[in-house]
Amino acid sequence: MSIEFGLVASHVDADRLWGRHMFFDGSGATEKGGVNRPALSREEIEARAELVRWGAALGLEASVDAIANLFLKLAGREPALPPMLIGSHIDSQPTGGKFDGSFGVLAGLESVEAIVAAGLRPRRSIEVVSWTNEEGSRFAPGMMGSAVFTGARRLEDIDGIADESGVTVAVALKEVLAAEAHLPRRALGGPAAGYLEGHIEQGPILEQEGKTIGIVTSMQGKRTMRVEIDGEESHAGTTPRSHRRDALVGAVDVVQALEKTMWDDEDVTRFTIGMFSVAPNAPSVVPGRVVFSIDLRHPDAQMLLRLGDAIPKICQDAAGRCKVAVRQLLHEPPLEFPDAIRDRLAAAAKALRIPSLDIASGAGHDARYLHYFCPSGMIFIPCKHGVSHNEAESASKDDIAAGARVLAETIFELADA
Amino acid sequence: MSIEFGLVASHVDADRLWGRHMFFDGSGATEKGGVNRPALSREEIEARAELVRWGAALGLEASVDAIANLFLKLAGREPALPPMLIGSHIDSQPTGGKFDGSFGVLAGLESVEAIVAAGLRPRRSIEVVSWTNEEGSRFAPGMMGSAVFTGARRLEDIDGIADESGVTVAVALKEVLAAEAHLPRRALGGPAAGYLEGHIEQGPILEQEGKTIGIVTSMQGKRTMRVEIDGEESHAGTTPRSHRRDALVGAVDVVQALEKTMWDDEDVTRFTIGMFSVAPNAPSVVPGRVVFSIDLRHPDAQMLLRLGDAIPKICQDAAGRCKVAVRQLLHEPPLEFPDAIRDRLAAAAKALRIPSLDIASGAGHDARYLHYFCPSGMIFIPCKHGVSHNEAESASKDDIAAGARVLAETIFELADA
Repeated sequence: MSIEFGLVASHVDADRLWGRHMFFDGSGATEKGGVNRPALSREEIEARAELVRWGAALGLEASVDAIANLFLKLAGREPALPPMLIGSHIDSQPTGGKFDGSFGVLAGLESVEAIVAAGLRPRRSIEVVSWTNEEGSRFAPGMMGSAVFTGARRLEDIDGIADESGVTVAVALKEVLAAEAHLPRRALGGPAAGYLEGHIEQGPILEQEGKTIGIVTSMQGKRTMRVEIDGEESHAGTTPRSHRRDALVGAVDVVQALEKTMWDDEDVTRFTIGMFSVAPNAPSVVPGRVVFSIDLRHPDAQMLLRLGDAIPKICQDAAGRCKVAVRQLLHEPPLEFPDAIRDRLAAAAKALRIPSLDIASGAGHDARYLHYFCPSGMIFIPCKHGVSHNEAESASKDDIAAGARVLAETIFELADA
Repeated sequence: MSIEFGLVASHVDADRLWGRHMFFDGSGATEKGGVNRPALSREEIEARAELVRWGAALGLEASVDAIANLFLKLAGREPALPPMLIGSHIDSQPTGGKFDGSFGVLAGLESVEAIVAAGLRPRRSIEVVSWTNEEGSRFAPGMMGSAVFTGARRLEDIDGIADESGVTVAVALKEVLAAEAHLPRRALGGPAAGYLEGHIEQGPILEQEGKTIGIVTSMQGKRTMRVEIDGEESHAGTTPRSHRRDALVGAVDVVQALEKTMWDDEDVTRFTIGMFSVAPNAPSVVPGRVVFSIDLRHPDAQMLLRLGDAIPKICQDAAGRCKVAVRQLLHEPPLEFPDAIRDRLAAAAKALRIPSLDIASGAGHDARYLHYFCPSGMIFIPCKHGVSHNEAESASKDDIAAGARVLAETIFELADA
């Protein structure tokens, strides 16, 4: 079967796709126009139910696995062949935006809808996927769904991880799976012919360069850690400075020492302390304990190794009278996506006359884990001023539709091969 | 009527008083042997009900005012005269101890119990008081009950203050007053002949000097502030350092600048940042906002003025790309308790052969507000290693009983005068 190039893309409906981004925001919408949809939350359960309804209207079969990844399958002409996967995630940061993650899932669904609307059916099945807990803000670390699906992590190693209120992954998973007990359960993993993911850039480059599509070449490496600083609680009014073991004072010295050492003049290293919690956190009590997160990223594997390995000693040296413990949660090396997929995506953009450029990903995405599992690739679309993980996150209807067109053409081509 | 000195003190029952400290800990007891009894909480309602029952068994009349201060009255021979007040508070820090506050209330009750057991009735009434929200850790600032009772603050100015979960003072007050709707309501304020308060020292001096009673001479001044640092939330993986406005980085620089400026070589200044909250507090989001508390204390009024007034500029200068706002919540000048009361307390200790010394209070207490309302005085008893605002807080049965004996003799003497 020879299909005219552009036929699938021509059935992408920009208004429908935009409307779903807006509607979607009903489950976890915030007053400031953003989204608060924690992984495995009631808000996510509602959004997933909506995805299942949209899929059902297209004849897609929904299924769910043990880590609650959600799949919507368009059966191919030869359904025994390994399917193509396309998707992203719908969980958000606590004060996140409408497009981070959701774009990839909704553009995947739109791709399948365009294929169906074009009267086509590819050789291989296509499965639209919503991966569980990409953000890692309710349960750290993130990308749990894609990590467990691909075998990079084992469910039994993460199901005891608890959120701030003490709810574990196991308990939260149980709730989601109970709400979706009517859906078929599938095994983790299984063969896959390839994976595509669309995402907003979360950086300013596409906007600055005036391009609509970023063909993602690579992903920087990432290490995450937890630092625990223990001092001693005491009375703010009566305890002389010489008697104090103030965990906040210790932590502030540690943070400053880290800030000084981690940053490079070239501004390539990404070093962030995003979570910082003080106990007992009462105005008239000298803090007894501080726990903070470290998020360190670098495109160079050796550099990532060297910087990350230096952290425990820097913390020890700076902590003064306090005790310090540093624990690594995650160490993901940098990766390069295969040319075969990048070339297909770039060719599709070119044929559709959508301006594109090659771009490195600063953020981690589920494609990181899929990369080691099956041939994978990603595209970016612009987001306003590069702002993301923020309720002000914004992307245009035209760019969203353009991204979906590139994905739709490419996923059909790969699934029909 | 001439009463033999020591008669009242001889009726103080060390075991009963100790047992009440231990029992008391049933409402808000923590696993580590401390107390978590927030102001106006369910735990405090339970503890108050127990106080009312103990008072009722002695024939004391309970009453409550609009800010939920709880009074237990032993009617005097001339009940129309202004009464003597004696008490402290029973709310605690989140990880507080068994003795901070509770000692003052229970020793007040024990004083009255000893007077009754001695078959005496003073000329003036004696009211045992439990003041609302001394700690200020659920609703800041603290000492709300004594401040509103004495007219230093107006209820309508504080009833909108909310705790971390958004519950206001007004709502929490309503719950407590509803639970105690069977108790007579009394007007705020009213005449008082004087006020006594016992408290643990919350510092190491009595222990170091081998004395049992501290006659409190003075109270250092205190200023509390809130500092708000606003940056911009952004993505930890994609936002270059040069594009960041990291509120945590700004706050850390501000805290270090404050630490450097506020401390003195003599170690007299007390400067504490006890509360420090980051938003959105997610590991992969560059923090957009930090709010922290300042607690500054000094025995010298001029020095307190000068140090506190310097804070806004220090914050501004150190905050880098972030915006800073500094708001003062409280400014309490240092004070000296009147000799008349101090001399009576010291004389009682001497007559009872309990070793005492003069001591300045580092902490604030409800006696601060009462001081401007009626002749007031305080005693301290030792606490182990000076540790307080900590679950490990500890005081001995003998010292507790000794403190109650001094209070019992003095309150009877003042009430019978």
